[in-house]
Order: sequence, then structure tokens, then C-alpha cells
Amino acid sequence: MKVIVIGGKGTIGTAVVNELKSRHEIIIAGRQHGDVTVDIEDPASIEKMYQTVGKFDAVIATTGKVHFADFASMTVENYYVGIHNKLMGQVNLVVIGSRYINANGSFTLTSGILSHDPIRAGTSASMVNGALESFVKATAIELTEGKRINIVSPTVLVESMSVYGDFFRGFAPVPAARVALAYSKSVEGLQTGQIYTAL
Amino acid sequence: MKVIVIGGKGTIGTAVVNELKSRHEIIIAGRQHGDVTVDIEDPASIEKMYQTVGKFDAVIATTGKVHFADFASMTVENYYVGIHNKLMGQVNLVVIGSRYINANGSFTLTSGILSHDPIRAGTSASMVNGALESFVKATAIELTEGKRINIVSPTVLVESMSVYGDFFRGFAPVPAARVALAYSKSVEGLQTGQIYTAL
Repeated sequence: MKVIVIGGKGTIGTAVVNELKSRHEIIIAGRQHGDVTVDIEDPASIEKMYQTVGKFDAVIATTGKVHFADFASMTVENYYVGIHNKLMGQVNLVVIGSRYINANGSFTLTSGILSHDPIRAGTSASMVNGALESFVKATAIELTEGKRINIVSPTVLVESMSVYGDFFRGFAPVPAARVALAYSKSVEGLQTGQIYTAL
Repeated sequence: MKVIVIGGKGTIGTAVVNELKSRHEIIIAGRQHGDVTVDIEDPASIEKMYQTVGKFDAVIATTGKVHFADFASMTVENYYVGIHNKLMGQVNLVVIGSRYINANGSFTLTSGILSHDPIRAGTSASMVNGALESFVKATAIELTEGKRINIVSPTVLVESMSVYGDFFRGFAPVPAARVALAYSKSVEGLQTGQIYTAL
């Protein structure tokens, strides 16, 4: 299969590429680095990416920014960082990509454990992750021609504990290579509308 | 208690007011009608509402627009209708209201069954409802001074079947008066971070 990995140079993205590259043709897309560049906040940039890549069978999104801050200091604008980037960036990839992807192709998005297991300073992350999970469940039933969509909901990564560890005390971190298996299941399996928790 | 009901002239809002009015002082807020007017998309308008009302003990939001359309015809802009109104409108009410509400006060938001039980043309509604439910779970753990937040997730209303019935075949509709009980539980009970499904 021809698989586009958006955020393919990131921690999860790199692990996903390593998991899939021996079996599939991988196109790495990123904001500044990769085989092709894309700004997921900009629909025109996404259109251009899909047109540049040509026909493809799978899109994996492992990217997305949100603003972390104590609820008491969160502003309305702070919530829009995650809405524009992690939420609508991934939704844009599906809305636009659904017109380009091959029949029987798949989209695999990324949410996170905070949708249902919240932490301090994570109200925006929780909101965005919950939005993405429900979007995937709803979109799965409307896709046609065998097209599928799933989402991977990882807990904190072993590789991220040095940076985020203080926010995730009590969470059992998982290696990115283990999280990458969930993306493989989504792309290489046949299910749709699934939330694959990577714990 | 002094309770602000945003959308208090709507179908659910009217039922909530009827449920609570014999026991509490009710302030009805609406876009165009009510004791006080408010545009929930406009943070300045929300600030003005809270300043006009003065001290209060509970905020109930029973309002919010989303765009319903088949996924194949949804545009990026269509998703922002629900994001700006039902999602961030309600989030704005909490972010701003948390600075004005009395200690031990409560916020009660409204999502809907589509967060986890999707229908045709409902991808935006599902997304927004999932976002709100996860936002409530996360915000509940960060509120201080005994402040609480819950969300009511109703199925389709008996009163709405003449308009929305074709989208909700197979769903058992509930009367708005029954849904109103969930808001009473949220305001008059002590739980926080709960999703009260009204089925």
C-alpha cells in the first residue's frame, strides 16, 4: 500500500514508519520536513499535498498541537490552538482526503488517553481528544467504497516521560514502538470506527 | 439558589425552568429573548451577562447550533459552525463564568447521544458532543472552592420528532420534562465530572 504518514518525523510517526516501511511505500509529510510538506491548519496546503502525492491507500496522522495550562489560566484563545491544529487539522485531512483516497483506503488519526482519564492542565487536550474520537465513530458510518477510519488513543510515551512525566504520574508509559502496532492494526486490518487504545 | 438558564426559552430550557422554578430563582438568558440576552459566541457578551446578573449559584446551558449534513458534503467551514457555537459557546460560559460563580456553584452543559451513537449527517454533532463530554470530565478535576461541572447527554426529544424523526429512526425519544430531571440532579446534587445520559 501507499501510506502517507503526517508527522512522520515525530516520536510516534518515526515508530509508525519503522513498523510499516518493510511492507508498504511510505510518504512522510511534515510541517517543515519530509517527502512532502503540509500545514494541516490550511486546507489549501492539504489539497496540494494530496495532489502532489497522487493516488494513495492510507493516511496516518500522528501530529497535532494543543495548549497545556491550568484551567484557571486558560483563555478562550488558548482552546483554539488545539481546535485549529490537532482537532481540525486532522479533520481537514479526512474531509479533503476522502475525495482523493483509493477505494478501501483508510484514515488513522491520533487522540490520547486524556479524553477519558484527565490530568492537571489538560482541559484542552481532553476536549480535542474527545472530539476526535466521536468524529471518527460518526464518520466511519458515512464513508463509502470500503473506505475506513479509526483512531489511536495512546497513553504517555516512554520517550516523552522526561518532558511530560510530572503531568502523568501514575500512568504506565508505553514505548512508541508498541503504540505503532495500533496504527498497523488500523491500516492493515479491516475494522472501521474503532478507538484503538495503546496502553 | 440563583440559576441562570441559557437557552431557557428552548424546548429543553423551558422544561428545565419548569422543573426548577418552584425551588429556585431562575434567570433566563437567550440570544434574543429572556431576562437577559447573551451571544455565547462572544466572550464580551458573556462577561456582560454575568456582570448584569450579579452573584449566582448555577449555570445551565441548553443551547447550541451545529451543522447537519451528509459527510460527503461537509466542508471545513461547516464544522466551525458547531465549534464556534455549541462547543466553544458552552466552553466560554464555563471559562468566563468560573470567575463569577459562587463557591459550591455548578455548571451544567448539554451534549447529546450522538457522541457515541452516531447517525447519518451527524459528524459535526458527534464531534462537538464528544468534545464537550471530555471537556467536562477534565474541567471537573481542576475547579476549586467546591465548584462543580456536569453535562447532560439527551437522546432525541419527543417534542423534536416531527422535525428530526427521520434522522433518529430506532431511537426511543424522551419527553423534555424527563430530560429536565438530569439538570436537576446536576444542580441540586453534589456530583461533578458526570455525563448524565437522559434516555
